Amino acid sequence: MSAIEELTGELARLPGIGRKTALRLTYHLLKRPAADVARLARALERVVECVHPCNDCGNLTEQDPCDVCANPRRDRSAICVVEEASDIVAIERAGEFRGLYHVLGGHISPLDGVGPDELRIAALLQRVGPASGGVVREVIVATNPSVEGEATAVYLQRVIRPYGVRVTRLARGLPVGGDLEYADGVTIAQALAGRRDV
Amino acid sequence: MSAIEELTGELARLPGIGRKTALRLTYHLLKRPAADVARLARALERVVECVHPCNDCGNLTEQDPCDVCANPRRDRSAICVVEEASDIVAIERAGEFRGLYHVLGGHISPLDGVGPDELRIAALLQRVGPASGGVVREVIVATNPSVEGEATAVYLQRVIRPYGVRVTRLARGLPVGGDLEYADGVTIAQALAGRRDV
Repeated sequence: MSAIEELTGELARLPGIGRKTALRLTYHLLKRPAADVARLARALERVVECVHPCNDCGNLTEQDPCDVCANPRRDRSAICVVEEASDIVAIERAGEFRGLYHVLGGHISPLDGVGPDELRIAALLQRVGPASGGVVREVIVATNPSVEGEATAVYLQRVIRPYGVRVTRLARGLPVGGDLEYADGVTIAQALAGRRDV
Repeated sequence: MSAIEELTGELARLPGIGRKTALRLTYHLLKRPAADVARLARALERVVECVHPCNDCGNLTEQDPCDVCANPRRDRSAICVVEEASDIVAIERAGEFRGLYHVLGGHISPLDGVGPDELRIAALLQRVGPASGGVVREVIVATNPSVEGEATAVYLQRVIRPYGVRVTRLARGLPVGGDLEYADGVTIAQALAGRRDV
């Protein structure tokens, strides 16, 4: 296999990148200075070498524990549960949450053979349970607003509630800046159900 | 800068990939086995190391001369002139052209400061001119159907014609499988002008 075919094939394995885009990217890279492409290659190698899940929360990090877990100014009484480490980036970008995180590594999906045991739920229960000294008072479930995300939230609520810890869920409703006209019926129904006094 | 930020930044420099997509790709790569990511990194390094322009035609290749130039079964009397090496892939895919290629490295565009001297036109004239022994009988200009591509074609026609070599241009018209209803006026005008007997 030629070097061009090989790189095109590797790029085409990335999500959202088909064969034609991969070929376009390959030829784009070939027109760039060799140092630029080498930098991309090194960045890939560095990420593989240096980035690992945090032992406490599962966030992807170069240190262990991660920046969030190691930060003494974070509120240790609240844990926000997300499906993937990339969700932490999105929540941190909002700049509103000051607690800790816990990455499940996916959602419960019996059709795909993913049950509670395939996710980092046992580790979450350890952080929340009596052995932890009762520091955690609230678990905010921030799984995706999908059927599987809902099912995962319900399951978590069921297993965490016995510890006397409050389990909450991110609000569903209209996205800010969105257009009511284009909102789907389920979202509008959720927005109505969750309506609040002005 | 963290390894994740560095890789995201490098990916975001690729055409058509914004910061959000780059971040998504980075986290996707972090979920894949390390060997997969290493393979992509190696493919990038290999392409930089091994791929160079062919000395004869400018096609990107690992050998010199390239596969096309080295193939004794290609028709040496016809040269197809393209803007970029990636255009050769598209024409080869059609499987209709059996001649040789010549890569210009772009198109004439005075606004961007690209004149004939910035393109590989002198090398083309050497392949076509009397010193070459008069082997070449036709130059097929396959620059893009854009204003700059047209201008480049007209310029090539003017400098090649004196050598007594036929200069042709790819037909403009309706794309096969396209819909007349959605074709723009200029394309329809070109299709009319180039109409042929059934």
